Amino acid sequence: MNILVTNDDGIYSKGIYELCNAIKDIARVYVVAPDSEKSAVGHAITMHNPLKIKKINFHGIDSIDAYAVSGTPADCVKLGIEALLRDIEIDLVLSGINNGSNLGSDVIYSGTVSAALEAYMLDKSSIAISYDANGDSSHEYKIAANYMADFIKGNYMENDDLQSSVLNINFPNMHGRDPLGYRSTRLGIRRYENSFEERKDPRGNIYYWMGGSIKKMHQEPDSDISAIEEGYISITPLQFDLTNYDKLKGMSKL
Amino acid sequence: MNILVTNDDGIYSKGIYELCNAIKDIARVYVVAPDSEKSAVGHAITMHNPLKIKKINFHGIDSIDAYAVSGTPADCVKLGIEALLRDIEIDLVLSGINNGSNLGSDVIYSGTVSAALEAYMLDKSSIAISYDANGDSSHEYKIAANYMADFIKGNYMENDDLQSSVLNINFPNMHGRDPLGYRSTRLGIRRYENSFEERKDPRGNIYYWMGGSIKKMHQEPDSDISAIEEGYISITPLQFDLTNYDKLKGMSKL
Repeated sequence: MNILVTNDDGIYSKGIYELCNAIKDIARVYVVAPDSEKSAVGHAITMHNPLKIKKINFHGIDSIDAYAVSGTPADCVKLGIEALLRDIEIDLVLSGINNGSNLGSDVIYSGTVSAALEAYMLDKSSIAISYDANGDSSHEYKIAANYMADFIKGNYMENDDLQSSVLNINFPNMHGRDPLGYRSTRLGIRRYENSFEERKDPRGNIYYWMGGSIKKMHQEPDSDISAIEEGYISITPLQFDLTNYDKLKGMSKL
Repeated sequence: MNILVTNDDGIYSKGIYELCNAIKDIARVYVVAPDSEKSAVGHAITMHNPLKIKKINFHGIDSIDAYAVSGTPADCVKLGIEALLRDIEIDLVLSGINNGSNLGSDVIYSGTVSAALEAYMLDKSSIAISYDANGDSSHEYKIAANYMADFIKGNYMENDDLQSSVLNINFPNMHGRDPLGYRSTRLGIRRYENSFEERKDPRGNIYYWMGGSIKKMHQEPDSDISAIEEGYISITPLQFDLTNYDKLKGMSKL
């Protein structure tokens, strides 16, 4: 089994290291990831600049080929599959483990999730993996990474439906405890309030910082947000067709 | 009627000027758009840098308030609605007119479409407008802009279904002729081949340019791609829930 791993926190982050370390015994691992942090880049791709690549030593693990790329997570997947690793049959693409959850309507902003969607658009099975972190702890990443290695060996390989999907997996903040299990979910709704803070620079010009806090909203019990809040690992199957078919039916008489 | 206009080609591009010029007699127009070109940024948002704004004179049109923003199209919509214009009831958000079509699965990369989706996520009606250009001709933008002004005054205001939507509208390349009419469509599938060109820099380091050509694929007759190829204006209603509900049904026993 050949697994391509990417992320949006950058190739030198803890999450991608723990993930690769946990799966290197069940698969041949290739890493193609951004050379620096690329959070909230959504499905951006780099068309107007060249993509520079650098082969790096990945934490001294000889069995892993790793490339740092001057692009976005979606760039890394496309470049990995179509150019750098074009002679290798990639069986699965993993994106993560992200520092912070990617839940609900927020997934549209997520570089982590976009990398997995890009893989799916290139006909590859893929999984985005995020951890509802309160910090950046190697120990918690390790727990999540071991769950993922077991998941891929177990449930995933035995289930054709899972294998032909793009999955968005979020781990709850475990505070050292084990998650309560897996729950299959749909995306919930996330909204923010007080999103912008207005400031003045030393020359009196106004500028804004995006910030804001999550608005407390009712969540359906089958949503990914509910699953995480209740201590479960959330698994949401995704797709990339943004057509609104309900609305389309009502528009036939244009 | 208050209309917020943005785009991804930048506030100084021809497409946004022709659009604003055509609608300024049917609505009060506010422009909040990127200070430079932001194509293919997808749904990126700017969280780690401040957003700088500059009030500009928009082609001498006194009735239009215009702000150039150091961010992405999605930033512009969020900042416009939640900060710059928070005291104004925006009735409709327009994004465009984009230089080049935004069709099929490619919409996920599109800054133009993401701006419209962002507006919809903030409970605003919105329309992304793109033109299948073969160049950057003011004359063709003007034709498309006039169609849009008529569409908003006519079909749009009379149809609640359209008003409560995010619409992705693409104009065919008209070569000076009129489009054959409107067609409501779903997103087709776009794939590319030979996507990367490998080169060497003067120091012998390999780098890649993303490029590639559109793969010839069968398109369903009700797709946006078919509509454009046949000379129609394509209107696709969009949504932002990426959950794959078909797959979810099969996953209940996890």
